[in-house]
Amino acid sequence: MTKKIDVVKNVLDANDEVALENRKLMQQYGCLSVNIISAPGSGKTTLLEKTIVGLGGAKSAVIVGDLQTARDAERVADVAAVVQINTEGGCHLSAGQVAAALEKLDIRNAALDYIFIENVGNMVCPSGFDLGEHYRVAMLSTPEGHDKVAKYNTMFQPADVILLNKIDLAEVLEFDSSCIRDDLSKINTRAPLIELSAKTGEGMDAWLAWLKNAKAKLGSSK
Amino acid sequence: MTKKIDVVKNVLDANDEVALENRKLMQQYGCLSVNIISAPGSGKTTLLEKTIVGLGGAKSAVIVGDLQTARDAERVADVAAVVQINTEGGCHLSAGQVAAALEKLDIRNAALDYIFIENVGNMVCPSGFDLGEHYRVAMLSTPEGHDKVAKYNTMFQPADVILLNKIDLAEVLEFDSSCIRDDLSKINTRAPLIELSAKTGEGMDAWLAWLKNAKAKLGSSK
Repeated sequence: MTKKIDVVKNVLDANDEVALENRKLMQQYGCLSVNIISAPGSGKTTLLEKTIVGLGGAKSAVIVGDLQTARDAERVADVAAVVQINTEGGCHLSAGQVAAALEKLDIRNAALDYIFIENVGNMVCPSGFDLGEHYRVAMLSTPEGHDKVAKYNTMFQPADVILLNKIDLAEVLEFDSSCIRDDLSKINTRAPLIELSAKTGEGMDAWLAWLKNAKAKLGSSK
Repeated sequence: MTKKIDVVKNVLDANDEVALENRKLMQQYGCLSVNIISAPGSGKTTLLEKTIVGLGGAKSAVIVGDLQTARDAERVADVAAVVQINTEGGCHLSAGQVAAALEKLDIRNAALDYIFIENVGNMVCPSGFDLGEHYRVAMLSTPEGHDKVAKYNTMFQPADVILLNKIDLAEVLEFDSSCIRDDLSKINTRAPLIELSAKTGEGMDAWLAWLKNAKAKLGSSK
């Protein structure tokens, strides 16, 4: 058992070293990066399509992690540079995979403003791996139920911003966002909760404002 | 790297040995067991509440895996014997956890007809671990999107039956079940696809019939 724990610790340490390099590199070239973690089907790809268009003239890139298929990458390729990572069964992205993607994006010359990392759809494993992002985004969608913050606290606790997507379905689903707020008040009071619908556009302004503000802060620290 | 792979292989081998014992034990006492795998929020707990009531006089037990909280267990405790397993961050159930739960359920004396194992909400990691179940159930819900079978093929490929839940929302979500069927035709043609809504009851008859048939087959093989 000790042997297993040691091996896991080494893997995590190695990941963290690469994550540090990723963060330095993105900082140096003024790219704000966010790592978006959610369950499968909560709407990460639709969110990104609408976000990148909503950011107007900014130059964005997307790093998409998926077990199989290039379906998500194809969907965002019209609006951003995209690198698809097929994890071939792996349940999360690693910093090394992101480092390789940054090379493919030619980060030193591409003059990117934003890098969006769409993690593998999974509320558990991606939370354990720093990819070098500046901010971590945890997203829940209303059909998943209002009990998820307490159940998946390892995902929501370290998040810098929390998105509640598909609020256009809240009424038909009898979704109780007060339960979300109560649970968040116990584990994470620093991250804002932004309720939105990537599909209808409701609430997207607040999310875009959050991103622009984060980008502005990054710029001023250079 | 070889060291890591060896350790992982040993963990899987040990899991499989315990799974074999679990399966023998449940077979011996005539309990049909199913391992239900899905994303968070696809409706496993609601499905179980309705299923157990729908099975009428049969005696059921539920083994619930969750990272944190006993919320799911509390919901099914009115209709079945329940054992809650808090994985404390772990992303799947293991055969050893199920073995301990079978002892708590007093399987040798409880005269159970069905044991439902509600795995941790995760479309990736639970698929790698045999728990000793007789059948594996993969469930998708319409809000997760019709692109998920190809993306999470490691979950859908080994399933014995596939449930598509929340079909009451299919119209408003413009859900295309032909995409599901096309993708399944490439990776798993032996598992039936049952479309249902645990909430409204639509399609539940087909699922209950599948369970009763599986139970009858188990009985005749004793």
